[in-house]
Amino acid sequence: MKCKVCREHAVVDIRRHNAGFCQDHFLEHTRNQVARAIKEFKMFRTDDRLLLAVSGGKDSLALWDILIDLGYDVTGFYLDLGIGGYSNRSKALSISFAEEHSAKLIVRSIESEHGFTVPELSALTGRVPCSGCGLNKRYEFNRAALEEGFEVLVTGHNLDDEVATLFGNVLHWNTEMLGRQMPVLNERILGEGNDARVALVRKAKPLVKLTERETAAYALLRGIDYVIEECPMVEGNTQHRYKHAITQLEESSPGTKSQFYAGFLRKAADRFRDAAEDPEDQTEVVACISCGAPTVRRDSHESRCSFCKTKALATKRKTEPAPRHAARRGKSGA
Amino acid sequence: MKCKVCREHAVVDIRRHNAGFCQDHFLEHTRNQVARAIKEFKMFRTDDRLLLAVSGGKDSLALWDILIDLGYDVTGFYLDLGIGGYSNRSKALSISFAEEHSAKLIVRSIESEHGFTVPELSALTGRVPCSGCGLNKRYEFNRAALEEGFEVLVTGHNLDDEVATLFGNVLHWNTEMLGRQMPVLNERILGEGNDARVALVRKAKPLVKLTERETAAYALLRGIDYVIEECPMVEGNTQHRYKHAITQLEESSPGTKSQFYAGFLRKAADRFRDAAEDPEDQTEVVACISCGAPTVRRDSHESRCSFCKTKALATKRKTEPAPRHAARRGKSGA
Repeated sequence: MKCKVCREHAVVDIRRHNAGFCQDHFLEHTRNQVARAIKEFKMFRTDDRLLLAVSGGKDSLALWDILIDLGYDVTGFYLDLGIGGYSNRSKALSISFAEEHSAKLIVRSIESEHGFTVPELSALTGRVPCSGCGLNKRYEFNRAALEEGFEVLVTGHNLDDEVATLFGNVLHWNTEMLGRQMPVLNERILGEGNDARVALVRKAKPLVKLTERETAAYALLRGIDYVIEECPMVEGNTQHRYKHAITQLEESSPGTKSQFYAGFLRKAADRFRDAAEDPEDQTEVVACISCGAPTVRRDSHESRCSFCKTKALATKRKTEPAPRHAARRGKSGA
Repeated sequence: MKCKVCREHAVVDIRRHNAGFCQDHFLEHTRNQVARAIKEFKMFRTDDRLLLAVSGGKDSLALWDILIDLGYDVTGFYLDLGIGGYSNRSKALSISFAEEHSAKLIVRSIESEHGFTVPELSALTGRVPCSGCGLNKRYEFNRAALEEGFEVLVTGHNLDDEVATLFGNVLHWNTEMLGRQMPVLNERILGEGNDARVALVRKAKPLVKLTERETAAYALLRGIDYVIEECPMVEGNTQHRYKHAITQLEESSPGTKSQFYAGFLRKAADRFRDAAEDPEDQTEVVACISCGAPTVRRDSHESRCSFCKTKALATKRKTEPAPRHAARRGKSGA
C-alpha cells in the first residue's frame, strides 16, 4: 500500500478512509483530524487556557503532543488514583512527557485530597471501582480547572470511547445522557447577577475523529512512551464489551464506528436535547451544600452532590469500629 | 431448575426472566406473551380477518398455532419465492401444517405472478438477493391481503428480528425507519372522499415479546415440523451480524435485547415519528401509476413504485438479446 499523499511506502492504513499513509503524512493527517474537530465543534481558541486530563496512556499523551504542536496553551493535569503500580507507572510517564516537552503539569492525588484511593473507595462504599473512579475524576478534573483558572477541560476520549458510550446509552435508551453526549459541553453557570459563577467548566474531546488504533500509531511513531497496560480494575467492564461488539462490526464493515457517531450528532442528538435540559421529574439544579458543585435537588431535603455523599460514606466507614468495617469490606471486596 | 409456576422439573429456562418452566407452563407463558403483545399494542381483535405470512419456519408456524389457539380468524399465506429445494421444503411444511390443523392457507408463487424467481430477480437486476426478496414479500403480502379482503397482515418477526432491525437503524441513524419501527403499523389510506381506499393494510408483529430461542422451543414442544435450514441466500447478511453482536451482549447481560427494544418504544420512538411522517425532502405520497400502491413522488416525473420499477427492469433484461443479458448476469451473480 502506498501513501495517499506522496505515493511513498505506507506505514499505516486506515480502512474507513480506504487510505494508507507514510509516517510524515500519517502524523499530519492525525493532527489535521484534531484541528478539524476543534474547529468543527468550536471547542476552544488559541487564547483559551486549556487543562488536559492526562492519564499516561496513548490518548492523552498523543493529544498533549498534538495540542502543543498546534500552538495551544495547554497544561497537563495528572490525578493519582492510587491504583498501585499502575498509578505509579502512569504518573512517572506523564511527568517524563512533561519534562521532555517542557510542558506544564499539575499533579494531585485522590488520597492526599480526600483520604482514600480508588480501590479503598470501592471497598469502603461497595461501589463498582470504575463507577467510583469516574465520579472522582469528573469531580477532581472540574475542581482543578476552576481552582487553577482554566477556561476549558480537555480529555482524550477517542472515537472508540465515544462510540462505546453512545452504544451503551442507546442500548439502555438513556435519553438524558444521549441529550448531553456532545464532543463539547459548554460551561454551566450557577446563580444570577453578581452571584453568577462557573460551576462546571467547558469540556472538550478533540480526539473524537480518531480511533484508538490511530492514537496508538501516532504515539508509537512519535516515540511517545505511554503506559500500555490497562487499568487492573477494569476487567469485565461493560464499556469494554460494547467496544468489542462494535469493533467486530467495524471489521466487516469499515466506517461503522464513525458513521454511527457522526450520524448521531447530525441526525439524532437534537432529538434528545430536551431530555438533558429538562429531566422528566422536573428536578432543580442547585449548588451542593458541602462543596458548591451543581447537583440535582430530588426532594425537599438539603442537596449534597454525589461526590460529597460518597466521600462522606467512605469517611464514615473508614472511622467506624473495626469489625463492622471489616465485614463490609469483605462483602464488597473488588 | 424448577418451573416457576408449579415447581415441577423445568424444561426451558428464560434467563432474562430469571425463570424456568415445565412444558405446559412454558407453552402457556408463550401464548400469554403473544396475547399480551396483541393487547398492549392494540394489534387486532377477534372479529378482524387476519392474513398471516407463513414461511414454513419456526416463527410463523408457532405464531399460526398460537393464533388458532387464541381463537383468532387467521388464514396462512405462503409465497413461493422459487429458491430451489429450500422453497419446496418450506412450502410442503406449510401445507402439512394447514392440513393437520384444518387451517386456511393461500399459496401464491412469485414466478407465476410476475415471471421470475428471487434468484432470477437478483441476477437480472444486480440487486442483493435479500433486498429483492424483501421488496417482493412486502409487496405481495400487502397485495394478497387487499385482494382477499383481510383487515390485518400478521408477520412472525420475533424479538431478535426487531432488535437486529432496530440496531441496524440506530447504527445508521435511519431516522425515517426509526419513526416507523413499531409492533403495529396502521393501514394507509390513499385518496379522499369517495376515492379513499386502503393502499397499505395494517401490519402487526405479535411475536415481539419472544426471542427466536423461545419460538423454536415452542415449535419443538408442540411437535410442529418446521424448516430448520436457513435460506441458502442469506450468507453474510448484515442482519445476521447484528443479531450475533447483540446475542453476545445478551449472554453476558440477560435482558439486553428486550430492554433495548422496549426502551426504544417507551422512550425514543416518539422522538423519530416526525421523520417517518414528514421526510426531510418534503416528498409526496401518491399512487403508483402501474399498480396503485403508495409510492413517494421524488420529482416531477410520473410515479412508479419500487416493485414495479424493479419488475420492469427484470422483465426488460429477461427479453434482451442474450450476450448483454449474460454479461450483466455474470457481473451481478449471487
